[in-house]
Amino acid sequence: MHPPLRGFLRRCHEQFVTDDSGAVADYIPELTRANPGHFGVSLATIDGYVYEVGDSASPFTIQSISKAFVFALALETLGHERVESVIGVEPSGEAFNSIRLTGDNKPFNPMVNAGAIACSGLIHQHEGDGAFDVIHRMLGRFAGRELDVDEAVFASERATGDRNRAIAWLLRNYSVLRDDVDAVLDVYFRQCAVLVTARDLAVMAATLANNGCNPLTGDQIVSPYVVARTLSVMTSSGMYDYAGEWIYRVGIPAKSGVGGGIIAALPAQLGLGTFSPRLDSHGNSVRGLKVCEALSAHFGLHLLNRSDDVRTCIIRDYNAAAVPSRRNRPTFELKILQQHASAIRVIELVGALSFAVMDYVSRRLAGAAPQAALLILDFRRVPSATTAASRLFEEALAGLAADGATIIVAGFEKESRLGQAIFGEDIVLPKLRHFLLLDDAIEWAEDQLIYRYGGFEGLAKTIHLSEQELLARLTSDELDYITAIGVARSFKTGDRIIAAGEPADSLFFLQSGMVSVKLPSGARLASISPGMAFGEMALIERERSADVWADTMVQCLELPLSAYATFRKSHPETGELIMRNLASLLSKRLMLANAKVNLLSAY
Amino acid sequence: MHPPLRGFLRRCHEQFVTDDSGAVADYIPELTRANPGHFGVSLATIDGYVYEVGDSASPFTIQSISKAFVFALALETLGHERVESVIGVEPSGEAFNSIRLTGDNKPFNPMVNAGAIACSGLIHQHEGDGAFDVIHRMLGRFAGRELDVDEAVFASERATGDRNRAIAWLLRNYSVLRDDVDAVLDVYFRQCAVLVTARDLAVMAATLANNGCNPLTGDQIVSPYVVARTLSVMTSSGMYDYAGEWIYRVGIPAKSGVGGGIIAALPAQLGLGTFSPRLDSHGNSVRGLKVCEALSAHFGLHLLNRSDDVRTCIIRDYNAAAVPSRRNRPTFELKILQQHASAIRVIELVGALSFAVMDYVSRRLAGAAPQAALLILDFRRVPSATTAASRLFEEALAGLAADGATIIVAGFEKESRLGQAIFGEDIVLPKLRHFLLLDDAIEWAEDQLIYRYGGFEGLAKTIHLSEQELLARLTSDELDYITAIGVARSFKTGDRIIAAGEPADSLFFLQSGMVSVKLPSGARLASISPGMAFGEMALIERERSADVWADTMVQCLELPLSAYATFRKSHPETGELIMRNLASLLSKRLMLANAKVNLLSAY
Repeated sequence: MHPPLRGFLRRCHEQFVTDDSGAVADYIPELTRANPGHFGVSLATIDGYVYEVGDSASPFTIQSISKAFVFALALETLGHERVESVIGVEPSGEAFNSIRLTGDNKPFNPMVNAGAIACSGLIHQHEGDGAFDVIHRMLGRFAGRELDVDEAVFASERATGDRNRAIAWLLRNYSVLRDDVDAVLDVYFRQCAVLVTARDLAVMAATLANNGCNPLTGDQIVSPYVVARTLSVMTSSGMYDYAGEWIYRVGIPAKSGVGGGIIAALPAQLGLGTFSPRLDSHGNSVRGLKVCEALSAHFGLHLLNRSDDVRTCIIRDYNAAAVPSRRNRPTFELKILQQHASAIRVIELVGALSFAVMDYVSRRLAGAAPQAALLILDFRRVPSATTAASRLFEEALAGLAADGATIIVAGFEKESRLGQAIFGEDIVLPKLRHFLLLDDAIEWAEDQLIYRYGGFEGLAKTIHLSEQELLARLTSDELDYITAIGVARSFKTGDRIIAAGEPADSLFFLQSGMVSVKLPSGARLASISPGMAFGEMALIERERSADVWADTMVQCLELPLSAYATFRKSHPETGELIMRNLASLLSKRLMLANAKVNLLSAY
Repeated sequence: MHPPLRGFLRRCHEQFVTDDSGAVADYIPELTRANPGHFGVSLATIDGYVYEVGDSASPFTIQSISKAFVFALALETLGHERVESVIGVEPSGEAFNSIRLTGDNKPFNPMVNAGAIACSGLIHQHEGDGAFDVIHRMLGRFAGRELDVDEAVFASERATGDRNRAIAWLLRNYSVLRDDVDAVLDVYFRQCAVLVTARDLAVMAATLANNGCNPLTGDQIVSPYVVARTLSVMTSSGMYDYAGEWIYRVGIPAKSGVGGGIIAALPAQLGLGTFSPRLDSHGNSVRGLKVCEALSAHFGLHLLNRSDDVRTCIIRDYNAAAVPSRRNRPTFELKILQQHASAIRVIELVGALSFAVMDYVSRRLAGAAPQAALLILDFRRVPSATTAASRLFEEALAGLAADGATIIVAGFEKESRLGQAIFGEDIVLPKLRHFLLLDDAIEWAEDQLIYRYGGFEGLAKTIHLSEQELLARLTSDELDYITAIGVARSFKTGDRIIAAGEPADSLFFLQSGMVSVKLPSGARLASISPGMAFGEMALIERERSADVWADTMVQCLELPLSAYATFRKSHPETGELIMRNLASLLSKRLMLANAKVNLLSAY
């Protein structure tokens, strides 16, 4: 099986290759030498995969397509105020090589020759003699490889470019150009003569579609601001006097060149590059247009054809009474949580956070704030957040904190892209706690409640064996017997009491302090409080399956299995009772685990 | 705590209400009577929530904003070919009331007066005398309420509308209008005099942003195709000769009217409506523009500023050897699955499926097809799929089926919107199975493997008690004793063997056939095969916690607890052994459940 998009592009190529209408550009002699039969199509995805069909590796000159990238470069290096002060952004309503300027003597937009020459002039003013090298390098970064220049085409353009020369002198007359006109024109002619392939154009377009980051190289070339403005002028003026029809019919920002190339960049979706030298009366590649139209129509890709259901962004919304942390807590803690854990509200989000999504989340939070003293937001299924989402989130948190809520976020690393979006430097978050794992966040919130309601006093006292669940319903004689054959043990914080892989030849009754059951990797399986046993699986297994560590000073009674065997011989029914207590404990844990599986697998 | 967006809109209102620049429209006398101090802002979300600030409930005439909706109505009722044959879609480069037509005598676009009058003419041609009523009703559906008409403004427009009369007669000269010119103009003047509020405009815009479905009423008013084309002409021509700047600076499709209103519709995000009667030299509301600019800039909402990481769409990718179904299978089935279950590949998707996302998924599938005889795709976290995604999915499935794979989809109802998108009528899916629940899908796939590798033979034979896990390591004498005190029972398909809530006074050893453990709600907890016990929790619990149903003809041995008590008395150590076997079984199930919790909560 091949990816279906490959098949679609092949069918497009097969269908449109038979269209021989249009004519190769002839306004400079060198361009007429193009092979009119060439036809290449390439589509680059925003995750960096490139489809190629036909003559996708044939080089041709980039021509006017360079205008979009040089405009982006000017915005990026000189800032938008400088650029916008000399170049407009309105469609001109005239041909691309018109010499007419706006009422205040600016080129109409950067996609007509006057605007593009002004752009090259800005770069020249900034970089001097190195201007073309800077442009050349930047075009190469967009394509993900070093690009050649067709010196013959350059020479041909320079030799015949009198109209552009006229435009340049007019721009200099109005101080739009301030440098040597010939030097600026050399930069402009040479940038138009850069050699690209359909594949290069696809990657360049995908870089625009990917917010300025080349999806093959990971190189962030221009900012998202610059990308949006570049795509804007492509949208309003990229296809000459066919721009209105283009947005109406195809709805994908695009730019064409008389060399026969077209780029089309659909934000967050794809970059398309086509090459076929025969042009229509507007100067756009005939077959290239058809590929763009077919792609948009077949897949419904029009930019303005979008919908969303924001309500799906909250995948789970529950409280910690329903889904407690994994900590196995003693009865006195469980009692506190039974009464109060509904104050811990957990909201698990899913999908990219946009303006609309975060506004919806903020309204859900606003509706429920008074009841939620501790609010946990889980982001582990959230790949990204837009600026809008970060802004709304920051303000929602400020409002919640003002209402006295504690906010806990979980499910991402602070250093990740999402973390940066949420903890961005200009964002001040009051009363905010961060945990990598949701379970740790819930446990911390539970501890807050237990602390608030006095539960930690329980940890200090020593628990008698009669309170051990595993020894429930034993007589006091039997308990005394077990105490007698057991060994009192003390551990200090950080001691490893049990090691995975060792023979399981004893069990422990925890009397004071806390221990954690962990995998050798460090992942915590459970926390044990006084009144609970650990290593109790020794009753049915021969080897320790996990480590047990002392989290605090610990006192416990260790019961060696050898001594217990003697006890069982003399008390066979008590042996069965203890095994039954173990089965009961396991059954309870299984019920909890199954409830959790049900909850988790519901989404 | 209030939603932060409310605060933002209030701050906008507070800031811009002090701006007294611009002037109330005076081209018709009635409009000059507007209160220049009025300022209303409203934002409607695509989930149907409406924010309102200031004079958001003050009525004013819709004027040119009606053009967008009447164009949409014309496209919807007459079809795009008819409409596009008489009205262009290129920016005119001239004032909104220009009388100039294109080279082939069409209005430039539906946002200038000529194009809008042509639209009203098309509706009139189709609806006759009822034309205005149809337009009026449709505007009301967009706003979600019945709208009034300002008869004084209508009369004033009609009395002074000589320029529009000239345009209309010119259109009739070129047969763009074919009906009575005065009747068409009455429709046009009256549609401009429909009274709306900023809130109405917000809802109307949100309906465009929500693919033509009013988010308050759920009314699907026009098709997504019509919405995309309407937003296209708003993008290229909606803000008069400020359109290029508008897409560049604000990047949200918009339309303004001389009554002081502006609508802005950002697809899949929001609809904005503003009202402030003072206009700038382009004819756009001064304060309204500022609100749009502030909203776009503060939240980075530019239409072309988008990014995505498609790789996050696959949230889990595993095989059924790692995550089997919940069916508790007998050893001989487990052996088959151990060997073969890696042929069942499960891919769980998350988030809306777009072109880029589904292309990525299709490449992942293409890469792994040969190994995956049974491929399960889980959609439970997928809210929607675009046309593009459906198309790519359909073709990917055809390719996989041609390679011999069986595809199983789960996690949605066939009748749901997603189901319709995936099972759309024009989509023919070979070798496709559908299950609502992922677990059922995995179980079905496991059954296919067991069937393929001969495992179902096992079901036919009768299992001796010695193969019962609960009775492992009992001597043959002890087994004979248990056989003697047990009662052989037979059930037929559909019988309820155990009912939740009844006293738990016996346990069952399944010898042939299949039973299911279910909650009274019908949700299945487990399936039991020969060699396994059920109702075995009677050993530690007093009451049945679930129903058990016979899925097939069933033969089993029921062991009454009363008889078992006698056995335990005489065999106390065997009693402990059986309890230990139970603890072992529970421990194994707990380990499986915990592994599942770990896997599920990783995402």
